[in-house]
Amino acid sequence: MSRIIASMSMSLDGFIAGPEHRIDEVFSWHHSGDEVIPVTIGDQPYEFKVGPVNAEYIRRTWGECGAILCGRALFDMTGGWGGRHPVDRPIVCYSRGVPEGWEDRDEVVFADTIEEAAAVAKKLAGDGFVGTSGTRTVANLLNAGLLDGIEVNLVPYLLGKGHRFFDGLSTTPIALDGPEVIEGEGVTHLRYTVRK
Amino acid sequence: MSRIIASMSMSLDGFIAGPEHRIDEVFSWHHSGDEVIPVTIGDQPYEFKVGPVNAEYIRRTWGECGAILCGRALFDMTGGWGGRHPVDRPIVCYSRGVPEGWEDRDEVVFADTIEEAAAVAKKLAGDGFVGTSGTRTVANLLNAGLLDGIEVNLVPYLLGKGHRFFDGLSTTPIALDGPEVIEGEGVTHLRYTVRK
Repeated sequence: MSRIIASMSMSLDGFIAGPEHRIDEVFSWHHSGDEVIPVTIGDQPYEFKVGPVNAEYIRRTWGECGAILCGRALFDMTGGWGGRHPVDRPIVCYSRGVPEGWEDRDEVVFADTIEEAAAVAKKLAGDGFVGTSGTRTVANLLNAGLLDGIEVNLVPYLLGKGHRFFDGLSTTPIALDGPEVIEGEGVTHLRYTVRK
Repeated sequence: MSRIIASMSMSLDGFIAGPEHRIDEVFSWHHSGDEVIPVTIGDQPYEFKVGPVNAEYIRRTWGECGAILCGRALFDMTGGWGGRHPVDRPIVCYSRGVPEGWEDRDEVVFADTIEEAAAVAKKLAGDGFVGTSGTRTVANLLNAGLLDGIEVNLVPYLLGKGHRFFDGLSTTPIALDGPEVIEGEGVTHLRYTVRK
């Protein structure tokens, strides 16, 4: 059965974005090396330039990803990635109702409940894992006991304020196993399993 | 010149204590192994029982510590460790005024400003480092540009609510170098340097 894994870049003090959605620091490791990883965001080509350890980490992670599960906030912020997520896997969006303009498009599956969104995404992911992110979605999944893993790309910054990765958790304390530690260039990748 | 290093055990979501000062999770690694490290808290003997990596980490860190710098909140919470910190080094407390009952005792130096507290602690530390912790003291030191290093003992828990390690920072974003990663038993030790 497919696992659902939340993945985000986070500052040491827990923020995935600074004030006014500033992401220069948390994604600084995307521009800290010489290995080019081309991605498509919507219909725009883009390049990550990362160090060798980070490149291997990204390729391995993306290679094992089978579907994307997101919430409405992230979907709206990214414009639904134009229907095509950078990792280029099926997108399932947890949303009460279908967003305007998406009624007749088939690139994204919309699900009314977090349970249904999780079930659909796991089915679509096949042998891969379901990748997810976004504060509310991660909290919803954790609170429902549906999250299997957490990957934090820990960046060496203190942001002081902004938008936290973990917020609104209701079933704490939550114990994790791990982490597997991968020391990347300008980032420490920490892979935890949620203990159930 | 002695360096000032903040050190705390912290959950993945940034808490150094849970609700009602619950510390079972953040200090779980103090009781997760077979190597006994005797400490004295005030006049009470106590034992850490840790794994071999953690034991080496603690012995190295404590061996290099030359003085303790704390704020009034932690001092009051611990009763000033009875005048003797578990690491058994001179204590400097940043406090407006001397706490009741400590006027005639000489185990602790009280300093009115964070700058004075830092200077006195560095002098007392000699060739060692100044160890510090406590949310307000760490924020005061960071905001004044006086903190040199941060050691986080990252424990595999999400606490959801409680008392944060990093709070009240005014000079963010703050860039760090590192970390040195030491994979302990039930904890990941991360040693950062504050970039100045």
